Amino acid sequence: MPGGTGDGAEILADLRSRLASSPFHSGLGLVVEDAAAGSVTIAIDVGPEQLNLQGLVHGGLLATVADTAMGLAVRTQVEPGRRHVTIQLGVQYVRAGGPGTIRARGRTIKVGSQVAHAEADVDGEDGRLLARAQGTYSVTAERPA
Amino acid sequence: MPGGTGDGAEILADLRSRLASSPFHSGLGLVVEDAAAGSVTIAIDVGPEQLNLQGLVHGGLLATVADTAMGLAVRTQVEPGRRHVTIQLGVQYVRAGGPGTIRARGRTIKVGSQVAHAEADVDGEDGRLLARAQGTYSVTAERPA
Amino acid sequence: MPGGTGDGAEILADLRSRLASSPFHSGLGLVVEDAAAGSVTIAIDVGPEQLNLQGLVHGGLLATVADTAMGLAVRTQVEPGRRHVTIQLGVQYVRAGGPGTIRARGRTIKVGSQVAHAEADVDGEDGRLLARAQGTYSVTAERPA
Amino acid sequence: MPGGTGDGAEILADLRSRLASSPFHSGLGLVVEDAAAGSVTIAIDVGPEQLNLQGLVHGGLLATVADTAMGLAVRTQVEPGRRHVTIQLGVQYVRAGGPGTIRARGRTIKVGSQVAHAEADVDGEDGRLLARAQGTYSVTAERPA
Repeated sequence: MPGGTGDGAEILADLRSRLASSPFHSGLGLVVEDAAAGSVTIAIDVGPEQLNLQGLVHGGLLATVADTAMGLAVRTQVEPGRRHVTIQLGVQYVRAGGPGTIRARGRTIKVGSQVAHAEADVDGEDGRLLARAQGTYSVTAERPA
Repeated sequence: MPGGTGDGAEILADLRSRLASSPFHSGLGLVVEDAAAGSVTIAIDVGPEQLNLQGLVHGGLLATVADTAMGLAVRTQVEPGRRHVTIQLGVQYVRAGGPGTIRARGRTIKVGSQVAHAEADVDGEDGRLLARAQGTYSVTAERPA
Repeated sequence: MPGGTGDGAEILADLRSRLASSPFHSGLGLVVEDAAAGSVTIAIDVGPEQLNLQGLVHGGLLATVADTAMGLAVRTQVEPGRRHVTIQLGVQYVRAGGPGTIRARGRTIKVGSQVAHAEADVDGEDGRLLARAQGTYSVTAERPA
Repeated sequence: MPGGTGDGAEILADLRSRLASSPFHSGLGLVVEDAAAGSVTIAIDVGPEQLNLQGLVHGGLLATVADTAMGLAVRTQVEPGRRHVTIQLGVQYVRAGGPGTIRARGRTIKVGSQVAHAEADVDGEDGRLLARAQGTYSVTAERPA
């Protein structure tokens, strides 16, 4: 995948393999639905056990889903041999969400050699916007295994 | 607890009861360690199943712990009959964290009749700072049950 | 302008009058170029005296332009008799900007009775994105004069 | 100043010289009051011409002062031959400010070889907190002149 600009099917397979290897993400049940260079959609089915005291989706879960979608979108565009880490995350909570499928679409704004910026929309079961997020990432050389 | 300024033991009992009633928080294993008016410390033991692909604590988990500590700190100071919801969350990721006990100390900056601001430090097992967070909350009348 | 949903020309005239009455904004030379319900574009000509040591536009100026565009966009949709104040501002700096016309397009994400969220793009002279911004606003009753 | 850890007087002189060379900062009348490694206090006298329509200090000015104080604090700790640029700025607006002296204290949270995090308090004439800010910076090699 030279320059991180492989075709959609290749990107999708790569990201799914990454999520499956992450205990945190697979434990949450996050699924990559769609992926292209610079844009990734993930989904999670939120059940009663993931709701807070008021029966609503916790903001931390929305932040997690947003950061994951943005990070994967950045992943599709960082150069081979380089990695990214989140250094700042901002989330605007627009509406309260209930149980059902939560979907986050992450998009890159700019992926440079040292810094990347991305944003995400997080929608609830009915397709209404629950949260907007912005992520800033540091891009560095891959650490030797 | 008039004006949300009860003594520490009363506050601690109230917050522990709230977390215990929240499936999301009790499922994560979040524990309230300390609480006073405007300041709350919570902890979580992060095991291998909560780590990401690189064996690190996911930023979404740090965001969750930070937002919870800040929200509980705000909770201690909102007036009776009023409630708060997170409307904006910002997190600066300072260091990567590994498995072990993660601890977040939330503090209110100002709790008004309509808006509250808070901040949190999130430390890793060794006491080093992993993340700084800022939360902005809307304070509204309690909804009738 | 019932419900803040007047036509474009009326909105534009109202916002221009507001900016003209603000010493801070008129001193900067900010101009409202376009306005509709929920969307406002403003521009500023940045001269040498507004550049920093490296000959670049200071991030604080981009933050100012973004917050102004978002605040005016919110203004077009708050109900009569209510006002808004910025309670949180986030800015992602994507590219350095030089002298010339800086243009910010603010859009509302949601304007509620107590809270509003908005976002803005800030472009440089050549139309390239310099910054993305997110604003969170508290909406309250107008204070009696 | 090896490693950016010179003594206070040397740091103060260096930062004052930098601000004086920046048309933007000297035009605003920003003054460096105090500086040590990782901590810088700046002040600005806000007159009627810098107030908005409601007679209040514009949030963009508070953002500017906060970003400047944080950036200078980072400056004191970046290694020789390296420079920093703001890549994300977050501001929580806590209280409205009027005319008079505005003072911002910037502190570094961590300054690494590629990324730096800082925070700032902005106080009004009466010493009350007007805003809290968080800045994230990219640290890169100095560009050849």
